Amino acid sequence: MSNELKEYREYRQKMNERILNGNNKVIKRIFNLDTNTYMEGALDTRTKEMLGLVSSMVLRCDDCIKYHVEQCHKLGITKEEMFEIFSVANVVGGTIVIPHLRKAVEFWDALEDEKNNSGK
Amino acid sequence: MSNELKEYREYRQKMNERILNGNNKVIKRIFNLDTNTYMEGALDTRTKEMLGLVSSMVLRCDDCIKYHVEQCHKLGITKEEMFEIFSVANVVGGTIVIPHLRKAVEFWDALEDEKNNSGK
Amino acid sequence: MSNELKEYREYRQKMNERILNGNNKVIKRIFNLDTNTYMEGALDTRTKEMLGLVSSMVLRCDDCIKYHVEQCHKLGITKEEMFEIFSVANVVGGTIVIPHLRKAVEFWDALEDEKNNSGK
Amino acid sequence: MSNELKEYREYRQKMNERILNGNNKVIKRIFNLDTNTYMEGALDTRTKEMLGLVSSMVLRCDDCIKYHVEQCHKLGITKEEMFEIFSVANVVGGTIVIPHLRKAVEFWDALEDEKNNSGK
Amino acid sequence: MSNELKEYREYRQKMNERILNGNNKVIKRIFNLDTNTYMEGALDTRTKEMLGLVSSMVLRCDDCIKYHVEQCHKLGITKEEMFEIFSVANVVGGTIVIPHLRKAVEFWDALEDEKNNSGK
Amino acid sequence: MSNELKEYREYRQKMNERILNGNNKVIKRIFNLDTNTYMEGALDTRTKEMLGLVSSMVLRCDDCIKYHVEQCHKLGITKEEMFEIFSVANVVGGTIVIPHLRKAVEFWDALEDEKNNSGK
Repeated sequence: MSNELKEYREYRQKMNERILNGNNKVIKRIFNLDTNTYMEGALDTRTKEMLGLVSSMVLRCDDCIKYHVEQCHKLGITKEEMFEIFSVANVVGGTIVIPHLRKAVEFWDALEDEKNNSGK
Repeated sequence: MSNELKEYREYRQKMNERILNGNNKVIKRIFNLDTNTYMEGALDTRTKEMLGLVSSMVLRCDDCIKYHVEQCHKLGITKEEMFEIFSVANVVGGTIVIPHLRKAVEFWDALEDEKNNSGK
Repeated sequence: MSNELKEYREYRQKMNERILNGNNKVIKRIFNLDTNTYMEGALDTRTKEMLGLVSSMVLRCDDCIKYHVEQCHKLGITKEEMFEIFSVANVVGGTIVIPHLRKAVEFWDALEDEKNNSGK
Repeated sequence: MSNELKEYREYRQKMNERILNGNNKVIKRIFNLDTNTYMEGALDTRTKEMLGLVSSMVLRCDDCIKYHVEQCHKLGITKEEMFEIFSVANVVGGTIVIPHLRKAVEFWDALEDEKNNSGK
Repeated sequence: MSNELKEYREYRQKMNERILNGNNKVIKRIFNLDTNTYMEGALDTRTKEMLGLVSSMVLRCDDCIKYHVEQCHKLGITKEEMFEIFSVANVVGGTIVIPHLRKAVEFWDALEDEKNNSGK
Repeated sequence: MSNELKEYREYRQKMNERILNGNNKVIKRIFNLDTNTYMEGALDTRTKEMLGLVSSMVLRCDDCIKYHVEQCHKLGITKEEMFEIFSVANVVGGTIVIPHLRKAVEFWDALEDEKNNSGK
């Protein structure tokens, strides 16, 4: 596993625990609601994760992008599909999105490397 | 046709013409690119319009929301599906998105009314 | 009651009903969570409404501003206090907030007029 | 003078007075600072107004756009120059800026009409 | 003192000096105005710092969040109060605020550690 | 060449290549359009780069700011002019822009150091 993936995942898990330990009911419910939002419904999880990704890109939130890129990767979304999601984000959000596109592609590449090396 | 739909469409068309008459190459290419972005590709137009809609909602652009709500409506996206797109936008973007959700639902209702009355 | 107050309140109520009729669980929970957020806790409702107002101003959401201005008005926040909330919003958010400040002051004036005329 | 120009100018002036009557020192200083920002310096006022306009467009603030479009118009910025400012805003900020471009062009047209009819 | 706190404070001080050395009157006045905004007035500094914090969170500015978290910490705002400020920011601003919440909690923990270790 | 400049340039070039290798037509056209936007026209490149910089600042995108600061530096824009661009960004965008101003000034200083040391 690359350092980038490892650090991202460990930091995320550690801080989520710290946040939930704060024991604030509203924040706990937001975390819970966040999980429910992407469950199968009239739209499938795959589509909803794409919606979460494009939203994160136009709002330019690198950590949110990483989270949804990983979910999309797990769900078998192809590179061509990923780039079309990226294209919508860049047309709607403008060139200001490009630095976040760089990070998204870098993270995608790390996930691909991890997958390709996992059986070795 | 409701006044809201009529005014929205006429204003949009009139001003798009005024903009294109400005004869600026970069702006013309953005308009052209905007159209191409939502064409069939690795993802179908239906999915891409949903991506455009959720992006417009989290960026809180009422006119962009109207445009994509209408496209989604034309493509046969159901009310249940629409509300799931809205739910992703509201969870990702927060309660600040609610006023735009109101406008989106109002516009959807106007489109439904138009469809139901069109054969009479 | 001024037309502005009447229209704002009626539209808000009508569309909230339309949204809740959509029967989407995630959206219903967001509405519910929104109410709970401002309840008495370690911070009192008065402080929380001020936090909601300043957030709405820097995010430049006129309808959200109106909602929190009205809540603050009901809770007896004075004009001097309101202007200090506005000042934080304008320093943090920049002159881009000024048009929303105009709307906020206009709405505050309408609420004051309503209060002053209510006993007549 | 068109209704749009008249209403915009009167509302702006009326509400600025209401705001300054609030007598908040920080807000008064922001208004004062806003004026000073665009004065001649290492960069001329013309360039600074263009900077103010493009900033207002990417931040998608219609009233701020109107203000700077009028200042640019007074300073003799040509339509071709205006459209190049618009093009930067639309490339940097994305298609989400287009609805604000429509309003900007509409306002520019109103200013041109006013100028052309002023001698009649 | 933790490395994170040390680096944050040293970088902030060094660059503020570089900025003020630029000798731009408008920027100097913004820095001055920023200080004045949070002084005691109709609202106390404690409330104003909370307003500054929640604004920084919904606008998702990590360095601004750190600054106001530290001010709130100095003013004796409790962890329970902090989490209620965070909850308003997360409800208003959406899950997109969560990565900034992680950073805020991490910084708060560092400040608590510093306080607890300062007498040893 | 400073590490900061080196890393910024190498990362940017590497990831742009990765993005273009994705072979998505819409994204390629955005990159192409981005280049064309700043070419000489009714406005000269110098003015357009200033417009790109101020837009990047108010939208608070550090990598975009670095790109335009470097372009402005190459075009001979003086430090006094730079600070006036910064002042517009900070007045329009508020104190939330200050952390990005710190990064911009740091990057400018690195470019000045590089220039001063290049003949040695």
